[in-house]
Amino acid sequence: MNIHTILVAGRMHKELQEIINQKQLSQTFRFMEEQDVTIEDLDWADALLSFGPTNCFEDHSFKWIHSLGAGVDRFLESGNWKKSVMLTRTVCSFGQRISEYCLSYMLAELQHHAQFQHQQKQKQWKVVEPKQLSTQTVIIYGTGEIGGRLAAVLKSFGVRVIGVSKSGNEKPSFDQVVSISKEKELLKEADWIISTMPLTHETKSYFDPKWMNVVENAYFINVGRGATVDENALVEAIEQKRIRKAYIDVFEHEPLTKESSWWDHSNIIITPHISAVTTPEEAVECFVETLQKVEQGELPSNLVSIERGY
Amino acid sequence: MNIHTILVAGRMHKELQEIINQKQLSQTFRFMEEQDVTIEDLDWADALLSFGPTNCFEDHSFKWIHSLGAGVDRFLESGNWKKSVMLTRTVCSFGQRISEYCLSYMLAELQHHAQFQHQQKQKQWKVVEPKQLSTQTVIIYGTGEIGGRLAAVLKSFGVRVIGVSKSGNEKPSFDQVVSISKEKELLKEADWIISTMPLTHETKSYFDPKWMNVVENAYFINVGRGATVDENALVEAIEQKRIRKAYIDVFEHEPLTKESSWWDHSNIIITPHISAVTTPEEAVECFVETLQKVEQGELPSNLVSIERGY
Repeated sequence: MNIHTILVAGRMHKELQEIINQKQLSQTFRFMEEQDVTIEDLDWADALLSFGPTNCFEDHSFKWIHSLGAGVDRFLESGNWKKSVMLTRTVCSFGQRISEYCLSYMLAELQHHAQFQHQQKQKQWKVVEPKQLSTQTVIIYGTGEIGGRLAAVLKSFGVRVIGVSKSGNEKPSFDQVVSISKEKELLKEADWIISTMPLTHETKSYFDPKWMNVVENAYFINVGRGATVDENALVEAIEQKRIRKAYIDVFEHEPLTKESSWWDHSNIIITPHISAVTTPEEAVECFVETLQKVEQGELPSNLVSIERGY
Repeated sequence: MNIHTILVAGRMHKELQEIINQKQLSQTFRFMEEQDVTIEDLDWADALLSFGPTNCFEDHSFKWIHSLGAGVDRFLESGNWKKSVMLTRTVCSFGQRISEYCLSYMLAELQHHAQFQHQQKQKQWKVVEPKQLSTQTVIIYGTGEIGGRLAAVLKSFGVRVIGVSKSGNEKPSFDQVVSISKEKELLKEADWIISTMPLTHETKSYFDPKWMNVVENAYFINVGRGATVDENALVEAIEQKRIRKAYIDVFEHEPLTKESSWWDHSNIIITPHISAVTTPEEAVECFVETLQKVEQGELPSNLVSIERGY
C-alpha cells in the first residue's frame, strides 16, 4: 500500500510531531486537534493516526487508520466501517503496564496495606499474616496480547490463572482457558476477576446482573472497557458482597462526572484510565513499525479484525 | 548425629505440636513456652526447636538447635555460643514472601495509590502516569536466599538490581554485586534501597549518619533486622529528603512501643514484622528436612556459620 500523506489528530499531536519529525520519514504529515480537522485534510491524507474519529470522519477516504490506543471501539461504534479501510491499533507495553497495575492492587490487598495503615494511626502492633499470591485463583477475561502478558506475570508468582476468551483456545501461561459464557461454573472459584476485554457488540454490558449473581466474594478489576460493565449491577453486587471490592480504571463515560455516586463508594477504587497509558515515544515506535509493514504489503500483527472488533 | 529427644519451645508450640504429631517421627518431643523450660527439660533434650533462647539457656547441653526464624541473632547475641553445638535456621518461603512485601510497596508507590485515593476523595479526574518497574534501580543489601529471590523477582520486571554482600561475589539475577562498604558510590543511583541483612556485629547500626549522607532521594525498605539501622539517623535523613519514605517491618525493640515517634511520622510506614512470617506448616517441613540431614550426618544447606552469624 502506498502511503504518502498522513494526518495525525487529537491530544498528544504536538508531542507526536516532535518525535515523528526526528524520524525523517518520507511521508508528509499534518498535525492537529481532532475537532480542527477539515474536509480538505481528510481529502488530502492517505492515512490517519488518532485515538478516535475526527471531525467530519464520516466523509473520510483514508486507506489506512492506525489507532493510538489499544481499543478501537470509538472507530467502530457507528457500525459504518468501510471494508476497504485497513485498521491497526497500538500494541506496545500495554500488557506489562496493565500487569503492574493489577498486581499493585492485588498485592496491596494481600499485604493488608490499608489495615496496617489503620493500625499505625492507632499505634497498634498486631500481626496479620499477608497472603501469598500463590494461594490465589484469578480469572482473566481476554487472552490476547494484554491478558496473556498478565497471565504470564501472575503465573510467575504461582497464581492459578484461568482465561476466558471468545474461542476458548488454550494459551501459554493460562492453566485453563474456557470460551466466554461457559465460564460461569468457574466464577465462584475466583479470588480475583480481571477484565481486559475490548468493547464489542458481544461484550457490551457483558458483566450484567445475571453474571454478578454467579460471583461469590471476588475482587473485580476492570482495565478493559467501561461499557462492558452494567454499572448499577456492579454496585448492587458490591452491596450483596458478591464483589468484595472493585478496582475500576475504565468507565462508560470518561472522565467520570462529579455527579457519579461511585466516587464516594468505599469499595470502589477509581483510577483515571491510567493502567495502560500510551506514551508518545512508544506510540510512534509502534506506528513506524506498522507503517513499514503496510508499505511492504505485509500483514501487521496489530491488524484489527473489523468483524471481531479488536 | 543421634537425636532422640527434642524440645519445642515458644509461641506456636501448640500449632507445631499438632503438625509434628501427625508426622509420626521416631523422636520424643516436649512442647512448652520458652519461659516454662526447666533445667530438667534442658538436660533431657538432645535438640531445641525455637525462635530464640529459652529460660536457663546458658545451662543447656543441646547437640543441635534449629531456629524457627531465619534470623539467629538472638541465639548468638550473648557471644558464648558453644562451638560443638550445631545451629540451623528455617529457610522456607521467606524469600518469596519478602519479595511480595517489597514489591507491594514499590508498586503502590509507582502506581500512585495514595494520590489516586486522594483524588477520589476530591472527586478529581486527573491523569498521572504510573512509572514502570523497568525504570527503577534497586540496591539490595544481602544476596543470600532472601536477597537472591527478591533480585530474581525484580529482574523479571526489568528492574536494574545491584547487590551488596560481604564478599561482593557475583550472583545470579543481580546486574552487579559489590562488597559492603564499597557500595557508597552507587547509592545515589538507587531509587530503592532494600535491606535483607542479618544482624551481626558488622551490620549493627550499619545504616548510620555517614551512610545516610550518601543517599539521594531513595525509598528505603528494611526487612532484615531493626538494629542494623540507626533510628535517629533515619528520621533525620527523611527530614533532609535523602530518604523519601521508609518502609520498616523490623525494629530494634519489638513490638514497637506506643511511645515511639515513628508511629506518627507520615513518611515512615510501619508493619508489624510480617514480611516473612513462619507458618507452622512450613516451619515443620523445614525442620523435618533438616532433621533428616542431621541424622544422616549430611551438611544441611541451612547450617549457620557461627563466625559469620547467619
